[in-house]
Amino acid sequence: MNSKITGTGSYIPNVITRNADFHQHKFLNLDGSVFPGDNETTIKKFKAITGIEERRYIDKELTTSDIAVIAAIKAIESSGIDPETLDSIIVAHNYGDVKNNSNQSDTVPSLATRVKARLRIKNPQCVGYDVLFGCPGWIQGMIQAHAFIKSGMAKKCLVIGAEALSRVVDKHDRDSMIFSDGAGAAILEATEEEGGILSFNSATFSYQESEYIYFGKSNHTVAPEEIRYIKMQGRKVYEFALVNVPKAMKTCLEASGKDISDLKKVFIHQANEKMDDAIIKRFYKLHNETPPENVMPMTVHELGNSSVATVPTLLDLVLNGKIKNQELKKGDVILFASVGAGMNVNAITYQV
Amino acid sequence: MNSKITGTGSYIPNVITRNADFHQHKFLNLDGSVFPGDNETTIKKFKAITGIEERRYIDKELTTSDIAVIAAIKAIESSGIDPETLDSIIVAHNYGDVKNNSNQSDTVPSLATRVKARLRIKNPQCVGYDVLFGCPGWIQGMIQAHAFIKSGMAKKCLVIGAEALSRVVDKHDRDSMIFSDGAGAAILEATEEEGGILSFNSATFSYQESEYIYFGKSNHTVAPEEIRYIKMQGRKVYEFALVNVPKAMKTCLEASGKDISDLKKVFIHQANEKMDDAIIKRFYKLHNETPPENVMPMTVHELGNSSVATVPTLLDLVLNGKIKNQELKKGDVILFASVGAGMNVNAITYQV
Repeated sequence: MNSKITGTGSYIPNVITRNADFHQHKFLNLDGSVFPGDNETTIKKFKAITGIEERRYIDKELTTSDIAVIAAIKAIESSGIDPETLDSIIVAHNYGDVKNNSNQSDTVPSLATRVKARLRIKNPQCVGYDVLFGCPGWIQGMIQAHAFIKSGMAKKCLVIGAEALSRVVDKHDRDSMIFSDGAGAAILEATEEEGGILSFNSATFSYQESEYIYFGKSNHTVAPEEIRYIKMQGRKVYEFALVNVPKAMKTCLEASGKDISDLKKVFIHQANEKMDDAIIKRFYKLHNETPPENVMPMTVHELGNSSVATVPTLLDLVLNGKIKNQELKKGDVILFASVGAGMNVNAITYQV
Repeated sequence: MNSKITGTGSYIPNVITRNADFHQHKFLNLDGSVFPGDNETTIKKFKAITGIEERRYIDKELTTSDIAVIAAIKAIESSGIDPETLDSIIVAHNYGDVKNNSNQSDTVPSLATRVKARLRIKNPQCVGYDVLFGCPGWIQGMIQAHAFIKSGMAKKCLVIGAEALSRVVDKHDRDSMIFSDGAGAAILEATEEEGGILSFNSATFSYQESEYIYFGKSNHTVAPEEIRYIKMQGRKVYEFALVNVPKAMKTCLEASGKDISDLKKVFIHQANEKMDDAIIKRFYKLHNETPPENVMPMTVHELGNSSVATVPTLLDLVLNGKIKNQELKKGDVILFASVGAGMNVNAITYQV
């Protein structure tokens, strides 16, 4: 029994926030001291490193589960399945539903329950749960769905990655410019067809790395001490990713029995252009190769880093011909790879 | 390949809160009106229905992940495994780490990462994630671990249920007297031995039921509108559980091929004594039987409802001879069953 993606969907939020919109922000260091230099220079440097020109935020009245529903509906439509036949709904996120102007995360009931309720699915045997695994949550959800299919527990799974990081950013932190909102979804089905998920690799590095991405107080020292925001030790995350992501990708590809020359595309978590470029170069270097042109579709420039949503959104956009010079053909071997809070790293080798 | 529990552990928090400690509370209805009658009568009635005399809260300086670690250490010790050989750490909870006097849930990094870091496990292939599935989260984590073992993805899993509901209760809501804190854990291992998990059943009812347990505002109308607490439509939850839990248990037991007469114990989510009594009676009635004496060990009187923690804690206490007239022998067939936010219902048939 194999497991193949039979449909995808994504939601690109409406509110476009351009780099220029950060010009009036008061950027501070972790200790509350003013970040040196003018904002124009700071933002120019940010753009040069991350590649991010703009990012998307959800409308004020929406929350993460709302956009998860939109991506889910599209995935169901594109697969053509009857939603009542779904065995499992897995929603990957990290912050639950955070209402606009609130600091509280709402996860009861689970976002999977909210999605299922909004999809008007009656079948109680369609089981919904949420998985928290940092940015690699959607890939991890896909691995779990694959395990359910392999073990005979499920035949059709809806796996969603949805996040609204705009609700947990510290506007006094330059890293706030990285984060964005989005949702992506896929239907994974049991099949006798060739291909689908060929191999996977997953790892949690917590011995020294657990606090590289964390929930911490504002850089603005007069902000209420108890309110927490998404925080990142950027340099450490960068160096960690550069060492561990190419290795996980290599291990994963080897386990599939496919050769590096078989590989058509790599869908990598959209965190930072320089980081992704360095990862793909190092991955090919591990095989004594250089990355072929257009092997790595990118959305980070316009969409920023929407955590769990980047990889399924990227896949959906490529499958729908929405990214220039990027397409997939039946039989193509591809890799999904991600890295994020945990620190977690994972990868899937997939044959279209 | 079968999967068997090779070790268990639990943590019973230190702070004992007796029913008398609620005498000074100002209980209000959902609409903010004063709950009629004196508190002594209210609390007496509460005790008569739920059986709860006291409940446990964690110390001020602790959070959910702290007590998850304590339960995990005991489970690892009792199994005798080397923690470095764990393939998976699954932490079921619903509210993350909520610090004392905070309203914010902290889930980044995941609680599984925090547990793994505190256990000082180095092996990156030991993958940690959190599952959100309401009160039945620990049983769901066990089902997931079982799927990983069945599919060859894992051999040894640590599954923890930990929650500190004391951090999310509305003290103006009588239901606050139900909720408590706790942590329970088990090691599930792949084995060639007979027994272990024989069957399972899982369901999500969200078509009309998704808001039976929810995150809502205080009954005290002058409290800040935006702060949310755990809330329950008690009557609806009760009626829902009475219909759906016995059915799920019956379906699960049938799938195991075992007969009702083989069943030695039922470990049911400790939510409410009257509800649990009614569930077990209806379950046996579905088999034209009445419940044998001592078939259902209980802790709700002293420990209250600690959500995901009740079932693994109950199992750990029985295995350690801590509950009067309750013991398990090798070969005994038992059922685990739970119900909670989602609304989710699940059950496992297990042979010791």
